Amino acid sequence: MTKNKQPSHFCPEPGRYERQGFPEAIYSPGKTKEQIVSIAAQLLKGNGPVIATRADEKVFKALKKRFPASRYYKTARITHILQRPVRPPRARSSGRFLCVITAGTTDSAVAEEAAVVAELLGCAVERIYDVGVAGVHRLLSHQDILLKAQCVIVCAGMEGALASVVGGIVRCPVIGVPTSVGYGVSFQGVAPLLTMLNSCAANVCAVNIDDGFGAGIIGNLIVNSHR
Amino acid sequence: MTKNKQPSHFCPEPGRYERQGFPEAIYSPGKTKEQIVSIAAQLLKGNGPVIATRADEKVFKALKKRFPASRYYKTARITHILQRPVRPPRARSSGRFLCVITAGTTDSAVAEEAAVVAELLGCAVERIYDVGVAGVHRLLSHQDILLKAQCVIVCAGMEGALASVVGGIVRCPVIGVPTSVGYGVSFQGVAPLLTMLNSCAANVCAVNIDDGFGAGIIGNLIVNSHR
Amino acid sequence: MTKNKQPSHFCPEPGRYERQGFPEAIYSPGKTKEQIVSIAAQLLKGNGPVIATRADEKVFKALKKRFPASRYYKTARITHILQRPVRPPRARSSGRFLCVITAGTTDSAVAEEAAVVAELLGCAVERIYDVGVAGVHRLLSHQDILLKAQCVIVCAGMEGALASVVGGIVRCPVIGVPTSVGYGVSFQGVAPLLTMLNSCAANVCAVNIDDGFGAGIIGNLIVNSHR
Amino acid sequence: MTKNKQPSHFCPEPGRYERQGFPEAIYSPGKTKEQIVSIAAQLLKGNGPVIATRADEKVFKALKKRFPASRYYKTARITHILQRPVRPPRARSSGRFLCVITAGTTDSAVAEEAAVVAELLGCAVERIYDVGVAGVHRLLSHQDILLKAQCVIVCAGMEGALASVVGGIVRCPVIGVPTSVGYGVSFQGVAPLLTMLNSCAANVCAVNIDDGFGAGIIGNLIVNSHR
Amino acid sequence: MTKNKQPSHFCPEPGRYERQGFPEAIYSPGKTKEQIVSIAAQLLKGNGPVIATRADEKVFKALKKRFPASRYYKTARITHILQRPVRPPRARSSGRFLCVITAGTTDSAVAEEAAVVAELLGCAVERIYDVGVAGVHRLLSHQDILLKAQCVIVCAGMEGALASVVGGIVRCPVIGVPTSVGYGVSFQGVAPLLTMLNSCAANVCAVNIDDGFGAGIIGNLIVNSHR
Amino acid sequence: MTKNKQPSHFCPEPGRYERQGFPEAIYSPGKTKEQIVSIAAQLLKGNGPVIATRADEKVFKALKKRFPASRYYKTARITHILQRPVRPPRARSSGRFLCVITAGTTDSAVAEEAAVVAELLGCAVERIYDVGVAGVHRLLSHQDILLKAQCVIVCAGMEGALASVVGGIVRCPVIGVPTSVGYGVSFQGVAPLLTMLNSCAANVCAVNIDDGFGAGIIGNLIVNSHR
Amino acid sequence: MTKNKQPSHFCPEPGRYERQGFPEAIYSPGKTKEQIVSIAAQLLKGNGPVIATRADEKVFKALKKRFPASRYYKTARITHILQRPVRPPRARSSGRFLCVITAGTTDSAVAEEAAVVAELLGCAVERIYDVGVAGVHRLLSHQDILLKAQCVIVCAGMEGALASVVGGIVRCPVIGVPTSVGYGVSFQGVAPLLTMLNSCAANVCAVNIDDGFGAGIIGNLIVNSHR
Amino acid sequence: MTKNKQPSHFCPEPGRYERQGFPEAIYSPGKTKEQIVSIAAQLLKGNGPVIATRADEKVFKALKKRFPASRYYKTARITHILQRPVRPPRARSSGRFLCVITAGTTDSAVAEEAAVVAELLGCAVERIYDVGVAGVHRLLSHQDILLKAQCVIVCAGMEGALASVVGGIVRCPVIGVPTSVGYGVSFQGVAPLLTMLNSCAANVCAVNIDDGFGAGIIGNLIVNSHR
Repeated sequence: MTKNKQPSHFCPEPGRYERQGFPEAIYSPGKTKEQIVSIAAQLLKGNGPVIATRADEKVFKALKKRFPASRYYKTARITHILQRPVRPPRARSSGRFLCVITAGTTDSAVAEEAAVVAELLGCAVERIYDVGVAGVHRLLSHQDILLKAQCVIVCAGMEGALASVVGGIVRCPVIGVPTSVGYGVSFQGVAPLLTMLNSCAANVCAVNIDDGFGAGIIGNLIVNSHR
Repeated sequence: MTKNKQPSHFCPEPGRYERQGFPEAIYSPGKTKEQIVSIAAQLLKGNGPVIATRADEKVFKALKKRFPASRYYKTARITHILQRPVRPPRARSSGRFLCVITAGTTDSAVAEEAAVVAELLGCAVERIYDVGVAGVHRLLSHQDILLKAQCVIVCAGMEGALASVVGGIVRCPVIGVPTSVGYGVSFQGVAPLLTMLNSCAANVCAVNIDDGFGAGIIGNLIVNSHR
Repeated sequence: MTKNKQPSHFCPEPGRYERQGFPEAIYSPGKTKEQIVSIAAQLLKGNGPVIATRADEKVFKALKKRFPASRYYKTARITHILQRPVRPPRARSSGRFLCVITAGTTDSAVAEEAAVVAELLGCAVERIYDVGVAGVHRLLSHQDILLKAQCVIVCAGMEGALASVVGGIVRCPVIGVPTSVGYGVSFQGVAPLLTMLNSCAANVCAVNIDDGFGAGIIGNLIVNSHR
Repeated sequence: MTKNKQPSHFCPEPGRYERQGFPEAIYSPGKTKEQIVSIAAQLLKGNGPVIATRADEKVFKALKKRFPASRYYKTARITHILQRPVRPPRARSSGRFLCVITAGTTDSAVAEEAAVVAELLGCAVERIYDVGVAGVHRLLSHQDILLKAQCVIVCAGMEGALASVVGGIVRCPVIGVPTSVGYGVSFQGVAPLLTMLNSCAANVCAVNIDDGFGAGIIGNLIVNSHR
Repeated sequence: MTKNKQPSHFCPEPGRYERQGFPEAIYSPGKTKEQIVSIAAQLLKGNGPVIATRADEKVFKALKKRFPASRYYKTARITHILQRPVRPPRARSSGRFLCVITAGTTDSAVAEEAAVVAELLGCAVERIYDVGVAGVHRLLSHQDILLKAQCVIVCAGMEGALASVVGGIVRCPVIGVPTSVGYGVSFQGVAPLLTMLNSCAANVCAVNIDDGFGAGIIGNLIVNSHR
Repeated sequence: MTKNKQPSHFCPEPGRYERQGFPEAIYSPGKTKEQIVSIAAQLLKGNGPVIATRADEKVFKALKKRFPASRYYKTARITHILQRPVRPPRARSSGRFLCVITAGTTDSAVAEEAAVVAELLGCAVERIYDVGVAGVHRLLSHQDILLKAQCVIVCAGMEGALASVVGGIVRCPVIGVPTSVGYGVSFQGVAPLLTMLNSCAANVCAVNIDDGFGAGIIGNLIVNSHR
Repeated sequence: MTKNKQPSHFCPEPGRYERQGFPEAIYSPGKTKEQIVSIAAQLLKGNGPVIATRADEKVFKALKKRFPASRYYKTARITHILQRPVRPPRARSSGRFLCVITAGTTDSAVAEEAAVVAELLGCAVERIYDVGVAGVHRLLSHQDILLKAQCVIVCAGMEGALASVVGGIVRCPVIGVPTSVGYGVSFQGVAPLLTMLNSCAANVCAVNIDDGFGAGIIGNLIVNSHR
Repeated sequence: MTKNKQPSHFCPEPGRYERQGFPEAIYSPGKTKEQIVSIAAQLLKGNGPVIATRADEKVFKALKKRFPASRYYKTARITHILQRPVRPPRARSSGRFLCVITAGTTDSAVAEEAAVVAELLGCAVERIYDVGVAGVHRLLSHQDILLKAQCVIVCAGMEGALASVVGGIVRCPVIGVPTSVGYGVSFQGVAPLLTMLNSCAANVCAVNIDDGFGAGIIGNLIVNSHR
């Protein structure tokens, strides 16, 4: 077998956390366990949390073997890569927090990705799950806490209408995360994405389908933009 | 100029009202005033109201000249073609009625098309306009009347989320009419159509974009299906 | 392994049947057997039938173990969750019934989903299967019964033309259910969906691709709207 | 103003009729009257009819001025370019003929394009217009003539279901011509095109949207393939 | 397990061959072996060849067990269902034949489906494979035979340009069969379909992606339209 | 002419500014001058700035006539509706500001809409225009100010790559506003929207095409979230 | 009227020709005559030709008034902005040249844009127009010159098959320029773009629809890459 | 089992290298090992390298068994088919070379396909990998070598912005290869393809998604066009 020529290889940025205030993460799909472990080792040279996203249990085990203090957030499919135990994430800080909302049960993987990423960056997170608009009274019963949040992340598939209703209530930016939950003309998340981009509430923006990671990063930046 | 050969010409069905309980309508765009007048004359041989939809004022005037009792519903863009005055449409009947709802001001042309068509077929109609989800309290303040309707037609553009919220409240079928109101990724009504088809409320169905006529026909059939 | 924080968990609505006249159903795909059993237990606190849709035999067995009187509708992929035996669904009631039609053999799973859901809600259902327009005489031979129905559900894939032909015959609303049957430019049901939404028959509306459940709910609401 | 360099200019093929049995036509949109007249002059050097398609009255007048015997088919938007009068197109020949069908009034421009092109090539044409499936009895009343045709061209917009119904009846190939008639999700003819390509009747093929010209060419080739 | 109610079951049309001149075929995907055998038994009551398309070897074996004289066309994925041996398909008849062409190796399954279907209906077929336009001299070397055909079927994936080039050469209709061969923006056959529908050669029409069966039916109807 | 029945008319929310911290705006397209003036009168009962967006000079003049202190932002196409003169918008506040960036000249209408909306809400805005990636040194020369912003809005059409490059530099959220600038496969802004949603920089989110208004609202909420 | 704040204005790059070997061009649509003249003045400070593309005669006149030696290439819609007369573009150089090909008459505007841009950069250009594949013998008669070119630009609309056929003949890169010529499912140039990207000839690449400018730039870079 | 009739079988072109300067390659997917070996044997009769692309290890082993000197480029998924050992590919030639760039780790399979193909044709290749725009300083640190290349190939998925940034820097053509790397609205490579086609840098063209082979062929033709 012929060896490929060696390019200047993958250069993860251990310095991104210093440079931008949020870390580089390892997106696991399409990478071998060896690649993931090797990248992790390089990222650990920097500051900020080091994580692998969309990581299944095999990835977690490979990372745990090399970095024994690593922790796995199963629903969020995130491995927090640690060489030694760290203190637990900060508790909800005085008044500034991120709210993460889902429309249905199957949206929780994406929601947890957002919530865990924000928490690992030190952000307080309030979760309100399963409050889809098919029974809008469920959402309205949480109006008090919604009005106190600095940012709300709404994870919803199917038609994604929850983002607009939330947008019409709160006093802060709403980040819509369309999920690939649904069938038929949900088109793997395109339908809720369109809903969020067309929202009649002016304070709603959107990220890519299933992109809990991005939403968590932005949510934390908004909540903690006063630092 | 060479004459085209004569095919067996357009054969409007004056008998459709007897056959199916709703009349053939003249869809005006793409037809000349002469064609519209000629088709109207044939349809008036049957029973049921004879109407021209998407009719601008020029079409109305041409029809009025020939059929002097004709009436024009401006917002609905409907001409009701009449040879002699008729009694006004029935008042709201005892308990069975259709509710027509809009999300915003610009949805009212489509909503009126639906409402007027249903009224001309003898259906009682309740209008609730401009209750979009960007301020969901506006809709909720009409909950009482919504719960009494036998059918609700929801006309909404942009993201069309209103249909899902209404669907989660009422006890009857909801007919979503996506409108071409919006810009960018509303794609001339495709986005609200997807929203309505993906609705997390199981009692929502949809018709074509801007199809107030079809919604009015179906709404009347549902409300009056007990006859 | 690190535990995820506990959100306010999935809150099925045992009260939806009272509130809206149709029950909450468990959409099985993407849920674990444990989740399905747990949700079922909560829904059984309300009235109305409790069902799991798109349920394979493994889901049925898990439910049967816990709720031993449960019944499985194989073609419809529905488990009716029962703690004790119930009386059989009502027979065809006096004159008011739903008609469920398919174009071809492979549309029957979707059709059965619609039919069984309606029957479990007490609706009489007449099935007419395999009457696609490639041989339109098959449909026309059932014209008598079609003209007596209060609502017709048409399940069709490929080009979905059956809905238009039925719409041109009957005196009631037609609910088109596009199915993902076909290949090439049927685009997993998008083509028949477009057909149904563009129908030249004004009394045709549509639900999402393969959404037999929604069609059954709406069909029952229409047939029984006089109650 | 700087002259563009001269490329080897447009080279219409006066010889195509000899070579392939059907002539080169001038597609008028996007060409100046001068260009059209100039191309016509070159094409007249060959055999076969010389025509300009999608030609408005201005194009006709410009051609008539130069080629005074030219004739205009208004609905078909075709100018037949003639230097001197010719005998009228052949009458319906003994048993071999093309049938051209439309679903609605607004499909007739496309249908006439097909019919006139075929007639100019000497093909007998039978027109059956306005027999859309919203009243399928209209089509069925012409079953006798349909069964005798060697080829049927079906022009239909909206959902285009007519092609499938015709395909299920006749003994010959059906050429579907989707038209851009409709609104909303007819997508300017894409919906009826998909219908025709997905047809459950195996003898249906399709040409481009509004392509009456192509359908007429193919229809004539099929009807007269025995020569 | 609860039995589904029995609808009026699948009614294959043994009479289609008499009625339309081509038989009903069994499209195998999505049907059980039992269903296929049962349908086959019913279709054998009529005239015309009985075939199962897209049939893998398991389907063939199940049919062979019940109908021992059945034959399998492996590349075409067609089982010809026979209860007793028949004479071989007719040889190339005097001058009237169908030409089946492919652009590349991987298009041959679709091409064989078309060719075998036509042959089983008694049509003479000439195969010219692997003559894609990346080396147009390969096609041009077969110009003689192309000019004698009554119909040409062109099977091509990727960009599907072969149909246009053939259309510019021959004197008969060209049926384009786009294949799902390709990757990236071939979109599983959509790209060659668009190519064929937009063909600058006026005598090209198209069928659905990979629809060798339909092309074979139409090809035979054209070649043998003089009967 | 028959009057339409009066629905409960458009109910603008003068209270939205109190309720959510940003005002209801009048989206001008599709509304008559009379409607706009009437809505403006109602909105002026509340707090917060009252504006009409996408307002051409005719709309401005109609508003100015009734509300003489109104001001027009021509490039932004915004009319600020005022009954009496107000103090000029606040100067850039101490350290917290929004940065608005464009890729090219033609993106400035959208950018000004965002900037003016934010300024009317009291937000300090820094504009950096025409720094598209075809000459990335132009952007890099503004790195200092970019690193100090609390939020950056990037308006870009064509391929929209600027958002990703900015996202890789700054320490705050980036709101991408795809513009409809471009031709061919920019698809009126869909291409830059996809770019922004797929951004390899995790801190980029997006709003609808050309939605400067929404971006300005969200930008202000982020910059001033500490209030 | 309120003045907009002044951003750091449009900064055309007079230095791009030095930096990259090709100049910045002024894309005229969406810019006022004043803006175009102002940008031209700035670009004239650098080297390389200064041009405005997609320029109608009004733009040309405005530029000519200020820069009197300017020249207009009408078909190409290009204004070459000149303050004083220059020598004519170089003649075809010794053996290295670009070949520009079109499929049909209406493709020549795009082709001329490519050809003129390349010529203004000093590239020799050979034009071969109207050699579409509906008569492939027209192309083949120019095989000699095609085989000598260093680069071929193919401009084609409708199905765009010409690029593949050319790609299978020549010894150099082929740049496909899909044009928006066609109707129906040509989708304003998307169909020929897909054809070119899917080309079975490996030496074909593509630029945006109607992008003659880009093709001319790249063509010149390839032909003159030896400098 | 019935044998299919034998068409004139696959005719690979051993002469393409002589004819066009680049060889015919075997695209492995969808072909059996036997077919690949058989085609390889025929292609080896010509000149130029013989390769199988998208070849997994099974394909390599089958080829190695028959052609023992064959070599496998694992990341590139290319088998170079050799009957006897050849000299290693040429070293970087004096000044003329191709530069292959990737945005991220997962783009390297496509990049290697391009690089290896070019090298096997004798082209010098410089690899610069993992320089995506999320950290644009990584790219800028390689500016020196970029400015010396005769052609740059940019392989990028997700939003593909790297191609535009590179296009704004270099003095040569840039070939964008969109990769199917990404999720959600990257649509398997459509998003980066649109980015590359819409590039604001005029010297960027594109090939099909993941088409490293085509890019390598064109890259070599450009770099070596002076021969």
